Amino acid sequence: MSEIKLAKKTDANHKSTITLSNQSVIGGKNLFIIGGPCSVESAEQMEQVALKLKEAPIQALRGGVFKPRTSPYSFQGLGKEGIEILASVRSKHNLPIITEVMASEQVDEIAQHADVLQIGSRNMQNFELLKRVGKVNKPVMLKRGLSATIEEFLLAAEYILAHGNERVILCERGIRSFDPFTRNVLDLGAVVAIKQLTHLPVIVDPSHAAGKSELIPDLTKAAVACGADGIMIECHPEPEKSVSDARQALSLLQMVDLVHSLRPVAKAIGRHIIHNNNNLTVISPPMRQANRQVAQKQSVIGG
Amino acid sequence: MSEIKLAKKTDANHKSTITLSNQSVIGGKNLFIIGGPCSVESAEQMEQVALKLKEAPIQALRGGVFKPRTSPYSFQGLGKEGIEILASVRSKHNLPIITEVMASEQVDEIAQHADVLQIGSRNMQNFELLKRVGKVNKPVMLKRGLSATIEEFLLAAEYILAHGNERVILCERGIRSFDPFTRNVLDLGAVVAIKQLTHLPVIVDPSHAAGKSELIPDLTKAAVACGADGIMIECHPEPEKSVSDARQALSLLQMVDLVHSLRPVAKAIGRHIIHNNNNLTVISPPMRQANRQVAQKQSVIGG
Amino acid sequence: MSEIKLAKKTDANHKSTITLSNQSVIGGKNLFIIGGPCSVESAEQMEQVALKLKEAPIQALRGGVFKPRTSPYSFQGLGKEGIEILASVRSKHNLPIITEVMASEQVDEIAQHADVLQIGSRNMQNFELLKRVGKVNKPVMLKRGLSATIEEFLLAAEYILAHGNERVILCERGIRSFDPFTRNVLDLGAVVAIKQLTHLPVIVDPSHAAGKSELIPDLTKAAVACGADGIMIECHPEPEKSVSDARQALSLLQMVDLVHSLRPVAKAIGRHIIHNNNNLTVISPPMRQANRQVAQKQSVIGG
Amino acid sequence: MSEIKLAKKTDANHKSTITLSNQSVIGGKNLFIIGGPCSVESAEQMEQVALKLKEAPIQALRGGVFKPRTSPYSFQGLGKEGIEILASVRSKHNLPIITEVMASEQVDEIAQHADVLQIGSRNMQNFELLKRVGKVNKPVMLKRGLSATIEEFLLAAEYILAHGNERVILCERGIRSFDPFTRNVLDLGAVVAIKQLTHLPVIVDPSHAAGKSELIPDLTKAAVACGADGIMIECHPEPEKSVSDARQALSLLQMVDLVHSLRPVAKAIGRHIIHNNNNLTVISPPMRQANRQVAQKQSVIGG
Repeated sequence: MSEIKLAKKTDANHKSTITLSNQSVIGGKNLFIIGGPCSVESAEQMEQVALKLKEAPIQALRGGVFKPRTSPYSFQGLGKEGIEILASVRSKHNLPIITEVMASEQVDEIAQHADVLQIGSRNMQNFELLKRVGKVNKPVMLKRGLSATIEEFLLAAEYILAHGNERVILCERGIRSFDPFTRNVLDLGAVVAIKQLTHLPVIVDPSHAAGKSELIPDLTKAAVACGADGIMIECHPEPEKSVSDARQALSLLQMVDLVHSLRPVAKAIGRHIIHNNNNLTVISPPMRQANRQVAQKQSVIGG
Repeated sequence: MSEIKLAKKTDANHKSTITLSNQSVIGGKNLFIIGGPCSVESAEQMEQVALKLKEAPIQALRGGVFKPRTSPYSFQGLGKEGIEILASVRSKHNLPIITEVMASEQVDEIAQHADVLQIGSRNMQNFELLKRVGKVNKPVMLKRGLSATIEEFLLAAEYILAHGNERVILCERGIRSFDPFTRNVLDLGAVVAIKQLTHLPVIVDPSHAAGKSELIPDLTKAAVACGADGIMIECHPEPEKSVSDARQALSLLQMVDLVHSLRPVAKAIGRHIIHNNNNLTVISPPMRQANRQVAQKQSVIGG
Repeated sequence: MSEIKLAKKTDANHKSTITLSNQSVIGGKNLFIIGGPCSVESAEQMEQVALKLKEAPIQALRGGVFKPRTSPYSFQGLGKEGIEILASVRSKHNLPIITEVMASEQVDEIAQHADVLQIGSRNMQNFELLKRVGKVNKPVMLKRGLSATIEEFLLAAEYILAHGNERVILCERGIRSFDPFTRNVLDLGAVVAIKQLTHLPVIVDPSHAAGKSELIPDLTKAAVACGADGIMIECHPEPEKSVSDARQALSLLQMVDLVHSLRPVAKAIGRHIIHNNNNLTVISPPMRQANRQVAQKQSVIGG
Repeated sequence: MSEIKLAKKTDANHKSTITLSNQSVIGGKNLFIIGGPCSVESAEQMEQVALKLKEAPIQALRGGVFKPRTSPYSFQGLGKEGIEILASVRSKHNLPIITEVMASEQVDEIAQHADVLQIGSRNMQNFELLKRVGKVNKPVMLKRGLSATIEEFLLAAEYILAHGNERVILCERGIRSFDPFTRNVLDLGAVVAIKQLTHLPVIVDPSHAAGKSELIPDLTKAAVACGADGIMIECHPEPEKSVSDARQALSLLQMVDLVHSLRPVAKAIGRHIIHNNNNLTVISPPMRQANRQVAQKQSVIGG
């Protein structure tokens, strides 16, 4: 692990936090909760999602507009139209947005509208893309590759850090195994290890790991209990009608219930889950800049 | 999963409990905690372990006397001498004992002295041994094979059940993966799935999964939070001197601390961890028989 | 690999051969070909198989009488009745027999009638069984475990060698992977590595690896080309009616064709495939003893 | 596999060939042999390689100029300088060139100088890059992802085909497993399956699979025997001094010897290996265009 230079924890208390808004800090005392559908399908769908999930509440909304699909004949995402939907929901509901970039060409446009750029599992070692998002002024959430070792995962993060972007969030989403019952195997040992090895915040995505909605609530509790800084859950107004990953999506009501059921688990390990509050404010661009300086001070990276 | 007949859950509340003593029930409201060294090394070692771990307290003591070792030239366990040590510690400290059987020839002798027989990962599909412990009057804890699917794991349990032994406990201990950082990958998705599919109690062994002692506390919290009925942790008076698996053993003090740190997590999901109490009583053989009938009633297997 | 003491190759030319009859030598210049059904189903079935496969010709006949089955409710083999069928076909057709032992209790009986004892993948680390066949006066073919590393595989062989049996044959049969299209992944890199690391003969079983009969002929050619000392192929008079593993069995005619198609490949790497010859003689027990001494001289094990 | 529409074989004789020059046809009767170093290091190095490997002879020269490296601190390739070296060796020695593109931005420049564009394993599901090379007028060799299923591999090829490029070559290079002895596990079962499922030529790269030079010769024979249309081998004037993947590179002499040793194996299955001949001609751009039309007729894709 000697090449893990910038991501490396320098002492036990070295933890980076990434601030999106006054209610949305990743890596702090509050658990960071991301919810939303696999794909942005329509303005109505996203409106329903945002409205309901604010009750939970969630701290960021997810939704894919550029979709990496195994088959070229599957739905590839709404693209620009989807970005506009995200931008509109974001400003109306004051909810930070996280969405995937699949190619360098998409980075500028997505960075203009999203609060966090996601790099998907299949691109974890798309090194040119890593270099590109290393130069953008937005936090990046890097998902672990399907069969990436912990070291490869951290070195992929190191690419982003080494190219200038200090706001990197790691996301464990299950690794490929031989067992057909679950879609992937959620590797919480990796979450514990990464929290000990690095100062970066770690989010857990149990939806892609489990692949079955009924497994998600208990698996999410495990993720919170082992020290994950946040969770990302796929949910949909009508899971069975989802254009992608229908089998693993929670309904919006199930998502709200899940967040409530996590409170005592978070509390048990000294974490907090924010209560519903209509006053959360998405920070406007100049404020975000300011906040970033705070985040930089909290982290020793480059300091 | 259609061949999972006896292990199958018939309704959401169908859960089997296995009673070892009045303080040792597996699968009930109380979390079942097993601690002890990988190998029984000496009477002094086991005395130290039992004395200290009663403070936690643990509900059963582990210690291998027949050791499955990858190399024929490695320490193979104390054998009969080890059984005598276990028997003596058991009666002195009123602590139920769990130890591994590796072959049919060992079953009768181990069954005479141990409260639970363990079938190790490498023997999960040693079908003749499964049939043999299916005929013994002691509970059996079956560990998941290194690369066993969930279905294969449940079908191995089904062998024991189908041969007459209804008291089967499953143990998730990590599956083999490509990542060299952790020894195995703890598959908590499987724990959640198995709790939904079957009525059998599930124990989690994070020690063999993580392979590194520093990962164990947080991983254990995850196991408790996702609904495991118990945990099994390797610990040793002097971990660095352990004859086997030294890298993953906790010290006895770390083990006591771990148990204490689990209390709020257990409570958060409605589980309880027993407090230290000097009056716990190992049930004498006739009592165990009686208790077994209670256990049978609680379970609908064969009913 | 420092614990690989007896299996280790001492110089580049160090290769053990195991002689079953004057036409059946494993590890020599002639490729050793094993054919037969997954399970012995009836005397008629085995008669048909033997009669037809002598045309190929094969050098040994396989057929399981004790079957390791994932589910306790699946056909478990004919047991003793199957052994009698094997014994009768063996003497009538002068064909060496290879069949699996699953438990210590079966070893003596199988050793009386079979020429080679097979240890199946699921028992590769059933160490008590390995020790037991280490004391038997018959060659043992050890199949690689579903997810065994090369080192674990060789250490399992080392158990048999260290307990006194020098006639060990290794069998690569595919390892478990994430891909559902083939049943397992045939690991020919392991075959090449093992031939370089040890003096033991290596057989390749492409049937269990591929799991689909149409993949077997080309995969078998690969096995021969990379230097395997023999192959073991599942075939059946009516593959679609096989009681087990029907999808992967060749018809008897396909098996004869396969052997013929292997001749030029074997020749290309300096190997030979025996031609049909009605005079092959199964060596009677005293002769086998004598032959064993020859085999011992050819090998430096313990020498 | 229902989404495999353009890659799908329509009848048993449906095989696409891709013509690079009059001596360099991929997918035809002649085995296609690619050799060269992991990375282009200098003009002298490539000159030495080309000069020596023409003796084998090889049909194409490989050498990376944009290198996907796990760590951001490792040598990342010579970039443009490397392309110039490749272009110069190509024209001097009349050897087709194959080199990797890692990003859309590199495609035009590489396509101007290389005869085949390689998409590396880590980019197998970099869908934007697949779409981009789908629009280029050069053949593309797609390497299987580290843990890609056969279906995912074929669907990645389908992306390229569906975006207009009919000249796709697949390359099996080993899949990730649990075994640390070999770098990856060469999956020849996948090669056999893919040859049966699709009309696309398949190349085998045993170098990345084995990761150890001593395993490569025998593994390459296996690849040829099972029906691969070609092989790609890493070799270097001084393997121990290679800037990347030193452990797996053959010396140039070993490479020449390997090619000679493959002749009888190729012949055994009806394949041919071209003899050394100084008259091989790289087709000039207009000729390549013409040749492409021939290739199109040979393939039924889009026909």
